[in-house]
Order: sequence, then structure tokens, then C-alpha cells
Amino acid sequence: MPTGHVFIATSLDGFIARPDGSLDWLLSRDAPGEDHGYTAFIADIDGLVMGRGTYEAVAGFDPWPYDKPVLVLSRTLAATPVPAHLAGRVRFADLTPAAAMAQLHTEGMTRVCVDGGQVVQAFLTDNLIADMVITQVPVLIGAGRPLFGKIASDIGLTHLKTVAFPSGLVQSHYRVGA
Amino acid sequence: MPTGHVFIATSLDGFIARPDGSLDWLLSRDAPGEDHGYTAFIADIDGLVMGRGTYEAVAGFDPWPYDKPVLVLSRTLAATPVPAHLAGRVRFADLTPAAAMAQLHTEGMTRVCVDGGQVVQAFLTDNLIADMVITQVPVLIGAGRPLFGKIASDIGLTHLKTVAFPSGLVQSHYRVGA
Repeated sequence: MPTGHVFIATSLDGFIARPDGSLDWLLSRDAPGEDHGYTAFIADIDGLVMGRGTYEAVAGFDPWPYDKPVLVLSRTLAATPVPAHLAGRVRFADLTPAAAMAQLHTEGMTRVCVDGGQVVQAFLTDNLIADMVITQVPVLIGAGRPLFGKIASDIGLTHLKTVAFPSGLVQSHYRVGA
Repeated sequence: MPTGHVFIATSLDGFIARPDGSLDWLLSRDAPGEDHGYTAFIADIDGLVMGRGTYEAVAGFDPWPYDKPVLVLSRTLAATPVPAHLAGRVRFADLTPAAAMAQLHTEGMTRVCVDGGQVVQAFLTDNLIADMVITQVPVLIGAGRPLFGKIASDIGLTHLKTVAFPSGLVQSHYRVGA
């Protein structure tokens, strides 16, 4: 099975987007001169898995931001065609986390980026995340889409390293498992 | 008015206690040899303000853990007497954050530790917190008493410094205000 890897930004109160999906609180604090490691991270994975919320947040971006295959896990979207301009880059499927990983394994993938709150939560619950890079943005937004959610039992993490950037972003690397 | 200061630990998913108030997830990861700065922090404040939840979590500790005056903001407790063994160390009052700070000001306090999720949220909303030291524990517990909650508008923070400890605890210092 491929390993799952998370690279995501949250507000200090744990949200990855406002209730309407907007990222203004994040984008306004981005520091163009800072290398937060995303390019190196994405270069080292074979594909991405995300949910409908994350897909719809980036679907309108021009150019499309990913040069790796994207699998969108969504019962709703699985019943619809992929937009023509994303054909060959995006697939929609209604699969469990394990079934998604099994399918990506048959395609030769070994490292998969897992993106979006609900999908990260589902993959964590099914023990399909190997490590997480979480970048905390110095703002409280009070409401939104949380990165983490309910779990059946504690999930211990091993802290690997933390880097604080001049912009105020604090990025911590964790391996899943204590 | 005194300034409010927060020094608190959370799980990586943002909880300060489990739903029943227990702190096992935190205490089991404490590293006795590590100085997380709490002693220095508490030496530099004049008193503490907390809510009923935090008070009840520590009320049974023997010895009582604070050597500074503690003001417990609780409508429920304000109608009850302070336990005899805490007389002179603890007071109960039903006050707004601003009224509490005004009262502590008349007593000569200049720096107050604000503790507990709901009280921190109320003081943040009323712009009575100057800075926060948040120590993140490398575990997801999935549910509990959150440090942060709903707010009327974004609260920007200025990152001051972050220290990662060998135990895996990551401690970030923020000034409230962007």
C-alpha cells in the first residue's frame, strides 16, 4: 500500500478554511520569499487524494495547481463527469480510504498526499497516514472547516522537527504513531 | 488595567482537557527533566483568573498548586462559600472579564494569568489578553474542552518564538495583535 502524507496549513485555532471555504486569512499572511517546503514535498509524492471540498476550492484555479494525478473521493462527484480541461489529471471516485490506496498501489504509487479535513480525518482513522507537516498561521478565525475531528481513540504522534518562519508561520513535522 | 497572560497546553487538535476534564494525555507525556517555563511564568504574574471547569480540575490537588491569589469567575460558585482550606487563596465571583480586571487593578495587580478555555475565550473576545504561550502536545484526542472558540472577528497574532522540546512538546509564544 502507498503511504499517506499530509502537508497542510491551519489557523492557530485549527481550521483549514473558513465555513465558505475561503483562504483569505492564509493567503494574506503568505510570504512570497519564504520557502515553506511545499515544492519539495509535492515533488516527492506520486499523486494526491482529496475530498470534494478541497477539490471545489481549487477547481477554478487557472492554471490547475497540481502536476501529479489527483483522485477526488466523493460520492456526489463520482456520478458526474470530470470537467474536460481536467481530463487525465483528475478522477472522481466513491471509494473508502483503503480501497483508494489499493487502487493507487495498482498504479504504482508509493507516496500519496492526503489533503482536506474530512479526508485527512478518514485516512487517520484508518491508519493510512504516515506523517504530517502542519503549518500554523498566527491568526484565530473562530469557525471553519477543521483539520481534525472525532476519532475512536487517541492517536499518538512523534514530533520530528519544527521550523518557525519570519512571517510567523510555525511548521511542525510529525510521524503518526507514538 | 492589568494585562492578561495565557500559559496553557493543548493536544495537537486543540483541546485543553478531555470531555470529563481529565489530563492523562498531557501528564503521561510530561518530561520531568524539561523546563517548559511555567515556574518563571507564574513567578512573574500577580494572580490568576480561571473558570469553574479549571478550578474544579485542580480543587482536589494537595497541596494547592498556586501561591498567587486565584479569582474564579463563576455564577454557580459565587453563590457558595470557598472551601475552608482555600480561604485567603481563592475567591469566587460572578464578574465580566472587564469587571474582574478592574477589581484586580484596585488590588494592585498588573499581570494576571488567564486560565481555562471558556475564560480565555471570553478575555480574548474582550481584548484583555496581551500574550499567549501555547504548548502543543503530540497527540490527537478527538474530543474535549477546546482552548479556542467562536469569535466575532479574526484575531491576528504576532509570533514571538517557538521552542521544540525533546519530549515532542512544541511551545509557541504569541503577542495578541497582528
